[in-house]
Amino acid sequence: MKRKVFFISDRTGITAEMFGQSLLSQFENVAFDETTIPFIDTIAKAEEACQVIKKAEQESGLRPIVFDTIVTPEIRQIIQASGALVLDFFHTFIGPLETELGETSGFRVGKTHSLSDEEAYDHRIEAVNFSLNNDDGVTTRHYDKADVILVGVSRCGKTPTSLYMAMQFGIKAANYPFTEDDMEKLRLPIDLKKHKSKIFGLTINPNRLHEIRTERRANSRYASLKQCQYEVREVESLYRREKIPNLNTTSRSVEELAAKILATTGIKRSVF
Amino acid sequence: MKRKVFFISDRTGITAEMFGQSLLSQFENVAFDETTIPFIDTIAKAEEACQVIKKAEQESGLRPIVFDTIVTPEIRQIIQASGALVLDFFHTFIGPLETELGETSGFRVGKTHSLSDEEAYDHRIEAVNFSLNNDDGVTTRHYDKADVILVGVSRCGKTPTSLYMAMQFGIKAANYPFTEDDMEKLRLPIDLKKHKSKIFGLTINPNRLHEIRTERRANSRYASLKQCQYEVREVESLYRREKIPNLNTTSRSVEELAAKILATTGIKRSVF
Repeated sequence: MKRKVFFISDRTGITAEMFGQSLLSQFENVAFDETTIPFIDTIAKAEEACQVIKKAEQESGLRPIVFDTIVTPEIRQIIQASGALVLDFFHTFIGPLETELGETSGFRVGKTHSLSDEEAYDHRIEAVNFSLNNDDGVTTRHYDKADVILVGVSRCGKTPTSLYMAMQFGIKAANYPFTEDDMEKLRLPIDLKKHKSKIFGLTINPNRLHEIRTERRANSRYASLKQCQYEVREVESLYRREKIPNLNTTSRSVEELAAKILATTGIKRSVF
Repeated sequence: MKRKVFFISDRTGITAEMFGQSLLSQFENVAFDETTIPFIDTIAKAEEACQVIKKAEQESGLRPIVFDTIVTPEIRQIIQASGALVLDFFHTFIGPLETELGETSGFRVGKTHSLSDEEAYDHRIEAVNFSLNNDDGVTTRHYDKADVILVGVSRCGKTPTSLYMAMQFGIKAANYPFTEDDMEKLRLPIDLKKHKSKIFGLTINPNRLHEIRTERRANSRYASLKQCQYEVREVESLYRREKIPNLNTTSRSVEELAAKILATTGIKRSVF
């Protein structure tokens, strides 16, 4: 029987999920069955959630685990009374912070992901739009406004990484693909050369690239292992020649790539 | 003087940031100066980070606050010795979980955002690609594969919401804009009607829409307040007529919108 896990929040539940996931990932030998219950912001909803937890215990015969990020004490208490192992994010850390800061916490629900800072929000949406409008080399006209320009072969992970950087950090990330036509004596196109300090290279294991491209266009020249090996070799040699900082995407998540790019380039995020 | 805050992690720092941000947002009257130090995965790097923290204390005369999600005990201890108020995510919660599960934690660095589950990762990238390929009504051919189809007027927040749902939850979210041409006797286009159960509407305050569109195309008919009011009125009336569930994006973050859409529709996320 899988161990039942609940992520409970008075808002979106995203913090509770991340909080719980990071901890559960340390227990590889246990199977979990996870449910998110967001927007528990009234006593009535909390009591309903409490019933769901109790029912899960009856059905599985195992005490459920609850990760909560509930701000309001009255609502938190109801969840506490569910009989589950409740790991309570706010209650645990707000006390020490209040002491340190000599301030009482606002106990305000939904500060985390609400539009508390409209400017930061606008900035983020602007960055997402920038990344979309400057995706895949569609245009190179706006590179003067870019914070970073990701380059690499087709399907090496440029688009998701640019979008993630825009969404999470408010960074204006353009991206430019080296196409097959670029490969012979690969050089930096003039539009990229002008903005060389902003360029960051991505590369990938040719076998993995072959797999990815095969899913998209099986049995094409584009997807052939030989072509993948050729393109990756040429691009990596360009990175060396031009001293372009670069990362291999093969076994890295989008989050890792984005964080490493920030750490390497020193680009400042505009959104926390 | 702003209170110096550090988010320190042996991986990307994203969990540490979220953890710290949710708590700091409860203290509205305190000004914080935040720095993320990711990839602290060796003793040497930890000692370097420790020096940075100590220097911040000397410069500001205030004890810094550290939020860390470091898994390895030896590295954590070095950060603990920095003299800062260290709020330690793993150390706090791993103990109770180990007791509950009767299992020892793996103390494995980087489980959270690493590619531990390649299948989930592929699924997420697939969802992001789906959302990009089905953005802004570019095509309606793949709606049978969509998990949700967001509809609304131009610039009401469809694209960032679809991308966020894809990125965060692995949900295939297409989106379709009602254009000015659609407005007269607004009906659901036939391709949408076929997939009505998947449709979710977004709407927005006309004044806010006017602001957003003005930034994009000032003094155009498209951006005029009158046009914005007209489009929003027509679209909201369509939602009522067709009983399309909908949300107002004006004062909601992308995270909130995504979580509410999931809660309302019952769509299951494929990625945690």
